[in-house]
Amino acid sequence: MTIQLNDFLVSRKQIIEKAMPEYIEKLQAPKTLKDAMQYSLEAGGKRLRPILVLALLHTYKQTEKLGIATACAVEMIHTYSLIHDDLPCMDDDDLRRGKPTNHKVFGEAMAVLAGDGLLTQSFSLIVNDPYPSSENKLRVVSELVKAAGAEGMVGGQVADMEGEAKNLTLEELQYIHENKTAKLLGFSIISGAILARAPEEDIEKLRQYAYHLGIAFQIRDDILDIEGNEDVIGKPVGSDTTNEKTTYPSILTMQGAKEKLNDHIDHAKTILNSLSVHSNLLVQMCDLIANRDH
Amino acid sequence: MTIQLNDFLVSRKQIIEKAMPEYIEKLQAPKTLKDAMQYSLEAGGKRLRPILVLALLHTYKQTEKLGIATACAVEMIHTYSLIHDDLPCMDDDDLRRGKPTNHKVFGEAMAVLAGDGLLTQSFSLIVNDPYPSSENKLRVVSELVKAAGAEGMVGGQVADMEGEAKNLTLEELQYIHENKTAKLLGFSIISGAILARAPEEDIEKLRQYAYHLGIAFQIRDDILDIEGNEDVIGKPVGSDTTNEKTTYPSILTMQGAKEKLNDHIDHAKTILNSLSVHSNLLVQMCDLIANRDH
Repeated sequence: MTIQLNDFLVSRKQIIEKAMPEYIEKLQAPKTLKDAMQYSLEAGGKRLRPILVLALLHTYKQTEKLGIATACAVEMIHTYSLIHDDLPCMDDDDLRRGKPTNHKVFGEAMAVLAGDGLLTQSFSLIVNDPYPSSENKLRVVSELVKAAGAEGMVGGQVADMEGEAKNLTLEELQYIHENKTAKLLGFSIISGAILARAPEEDIEKLRQYAYHLGIAFQIRDDILDIEGNEDVIGKPVGSDTTNEKTTYPSILTMQGAKEKLNDHIDHAKTILNSLSVHSNLLVQMCDLIANRDH
Repeated sequence: MTIQLNDFLVSRKQIIEKAMPEYIEKLQAPKTLKDAMQYSLEAGGKRLRPILVLALLHTYKQTEKLGIATACAVEMIHTYSLIHDDLPCMDDDDLRRGKPTNHKVFGEAMAVLAGDGLLTQSFSLIVNDPYPSSENKLRVVSELVKAAGAEGMVGGQVADMEGEAKNLTLEELQYIHENKTAKLLGFSIISGAILARAPEEDIEKLRQYAYHLGIAFQIRDDILDIEGNEDVIGKPVGSDTTNEKTTYPSILTMQGAKEKLNDHIDHAKTILNSLSVHSNLLVQMCDLIANRDH
């Protein structure tokens, strides 16, 4: 029987949201720090990154317990990046998903440290996971650093900052989003495949799938900032235009951006067809990314 | 022939200072980010933490190449913590070792990201090190998270912040320093012992040695803030008193602090006598920590 993506999203979101606080609760650390870490972890969101890890294990018919710790780790990394991005010296945001941002509740210094704490802890989840092999855990950590560090998300954030209020070329815009967004989404897919002991040829194909899915994700984000419904997205639309940000629609026109989105989704689906397994869940994931309204 | 500590410090500092920039140079990342990461790594310091890793390998007569990557990793962690500590929302320091702090040169946002980048990259150094066994690399990463994260340095920093301008008990002061300072110094010793494949009984004893050495290090720091020479330390003396910080001398009197320092050093040396190896270098390290003038 083929699982419907929506059932998968709902059930796995529950698993992740149950597992994450347990890692924080058992830490021997000052209460305020743990509260600040929990606050942002609990702030919700689609949990797309951890669910993707589990989706890969499901696709390769492996027990999902091989991926729970890594799934929580990638959500911790995503959460730390949001806390640091929201800081007054960065994007200076007061609200995140309709709730006050971390530094608004706990102060700036604690928000810096809560982010540092989540980033550091995420590596512990992976290396202390009792289920995967040692070799696979080392490989997953190595992939995580590439996706989240200077060669990935942190580098993308720097490029994004440096590109603010500049007219970027499509190539520059692509660099920012590939690094700032696509690589961490890609990590979820690659780490899930590694933990599922997928064939090496599949893993390399999945890197391409992840790239197209990640860029499609960002193009959809840019489109929603213009055409989206504020109540559904949970943040004001039109902020990119106000901030004079270069976006896919601003370079390609809205029509061009939608075509590019469809191109990336088509590429992603073609790659899935060439895998050694049937990947119905990952095909549905393409449609979700292309059509999401938040 | 027994090596003199001073020769060891000078020669190994050179090795570390040559190796660290190479890890940053080869990163595929925005130039400003790499510059900001390099700037603080190059800002000098005693390099005590990385040298301790190598000192353990030397003590156990193992090739020091087993520890170069981990040594650089711990110095990156130490450096990231200084960058974040110096931020306006934290200690708001303009100078570090006589040079402008990272955010003074690169701006606050870049300083946050340079710290995040160094923290993330440090894990890559360890897991991609070709020399140690997989099991030892996983063990070293796990020790690093415990020492540097919420259960160690980050937790200690939070406790330090929350204790500012309060009258702390000796127990509270001890908690702060054990976590903020001693655990990362301890990591250097423990990771060096793990990588040297020291007997497990020795590793547990070295944990105690590291604890005493770390606390002694901090007591000496507090003493230097009162009795030290500004030109030698590279920062103003008396800042703890000005900031109404609780210190070992403020709780125990100067005489009491010096006695406590000597007690910890004596304990550390007694532990060394019970190891399975001759540890001349580590004995000399005790005297260095007890008598250092900066």
